[in-house]
Amino acid sequence: MKLYGYWRSGTSYRVRIALALKGGQVESVPVNLLEGEHREEPFRAINPQGLVPALALDDGTVLTQSPAIIEYLDETLPGPKLLPEDPVRRAQARQLAAVIGCDIHPIQNLRILKAVQSRYDQSREEAFAWAAHWIAVGFEALEAEVSAIRGGGPFCLGDEPSVPDCYLVPQMYAANRFGTDLTPFPTLRAIDEAMKEIPEVAAAHPDRQPDANTA
Amino acid sequence: MKLYGYWRSGTSYRVRIALALKGGQVESVPVNLLEGEHREEPFRAINPQGLVPALALDDGTVLTQSPAIIEYLDETLPGPKLLPEDPVRRAQARQLAAVIGCDIHPIQNLRILKAVQSRYDQSREEAFAWAAHWIAVGFEALEAEVSAIRGGGPFCLGDEPSVPDCYLVPQMYAANRFGTDLTPFPTLRAIDEAMKEIPEVAAAHPDRQPDANTA
Repeated sequence: MKLYGYWRSGTSYRVRIALALKGGQVESVPVNLLEGEHREEPFRAINPQGLVPALALDDGTVLTQSPAIIEYLDETLPGPKLLPEDPVRRAQARQLAAVIGCDIHPIQNLRILKAVQSRYDQSREEAFAWAAHWIAVGFEALEAEVSAIRGGGPFCLGDEPSVPDCYLVPQMYAANRFGTDLTPFPTLRAIDEAMKEIPEVAAAHPDRQPDANTA
Repeated sequence: MKLYGYWRSGTSYRVRIALALKGGQVESVPVNLLEGEHREEPFRAINPQGLVPALALDDGTVLTQSPAIIEYLDETLPGPKLLPEDPVRRAQARQLAAVIGCDIHPIQNLRILKAVQSRYDQSREEAFAWAAHWIAVGFEALEAEVSAIRGGGPFCLGDEPSVPDCYLVPQMYAANRFGTDLTPFPTLRAIDEAMKEIPEVAAAHPDRQPDANTA
C-alpha cells in the first residue's frame, strides 16, 4: 500500500497516527499541496479528485477520505483495535471523532481559509481568527463530551487509544497554529500529551515527515 | 429509543432515511432550532451540547453525530445492512458519505451561513451563494467518484441502498434550497430519484415531518 499525504494536512496526520497505532507499514508518498502537485501528474492519475490523504491498495484501488481510510485500516490490519467491540462505545468513539471530523476541521481547512480571504476581502490574520473561533466552539463541546464519556484513563475512551485520539492530536496541532486559547480544555490537553508520549505517534508528527517545511 | 431532530436539518434527515431503510421504529421528538429549543430545557437535560440529531437509548445514553448514529443503527438493528461486508466496498461507502458529511454539509449548515452574514456583513443571498458554491464543488467530486465506484444499479454502490444514499438525498434537498445548478450531476440526480421512489424514504422527507414549516 502507498499513502499519499502532505506533512501539515490534518487529515493526512490522522491517518499516520492510526497507522502508527496499528503498527501498519505503508510507503509514504508526499504530495505538495501548496505547489499544486495534487492537481498534476503523476498524482492525478492516482486520484483524479486530487485529494490527500489517498491510500492506494496493491490492486490499484484508491481510497480517499480519512474517516473511511482509518476504519479500513482498523478492519483489515492486525494490531490493536481502534474501535471497541461494544456498539455503544463504538458509537461514542465515532461521535467524538465526528465532532472534529465534521464540526471543526472542515471549517478551518486551507480552502476555506483561502475563500474567507478572497471572497470577503479579509486578512490572513482574520482567516486565522475564523479558524481559531470554530476550533474553540468545537473543543468546548468535545471537552464536555470526552469528560462525560471516558470515565478515567489517559485517552478519549479511557485506557486504550482509539479512533478519536487519532483525530484529536492533529486538531490540537492546528489549534496551536491558529492561536486557539487551549486553557479551557484541560482534558483535551492531557489526552494530547498522553498520545504524544507514544513513540510511534510522536513519529507521525508533521515536523518529522520527509516533506516537512517544504511550504 | 427516541430520536430528537428538526424537520429541515440535513443531519436529522439522514438519520431518518437510515431508520427508514432499516425498518427501525423510534419515537420522533422535534426540537425547534430556530426558536432555540436546543439550548433550553427540557432538551438541555437530554443533550447538554444542544445538538440534533440525538438518539436517546432506553438506558438514557444519548448518542449524537449522524455518522455515529447511522453506523450504530446499522450495527444493532435488524433489517438490510447499510454497509457491505467487503472491506474495500465498506470503505468506498464511507468515502462517499464523507464527501457529503465532511466536505459539503459542514460548510453550508445554518451556523456557518449565519456567521458569513454577521462576521463579514454579507446578505442572505450571498450566504446562499456561498452554500451553493461549496455544494457544487463537492458534488463535482462526488459525481465522478460515484460513477467510478458503483458499476451499475440505481444506488451509490449499485443494487442496494447503503449509507451514502442516506447522505445524498438530504444534500440534494439542500442543493435545491440554496439554488445549486444540478445539471452537471446526472448520476447524483438519478440516485436521488431512485431513493425517493422507496415509500419509506419518501416518508422521511422534511415536509412530511410533524414539525414541518414551523420555521
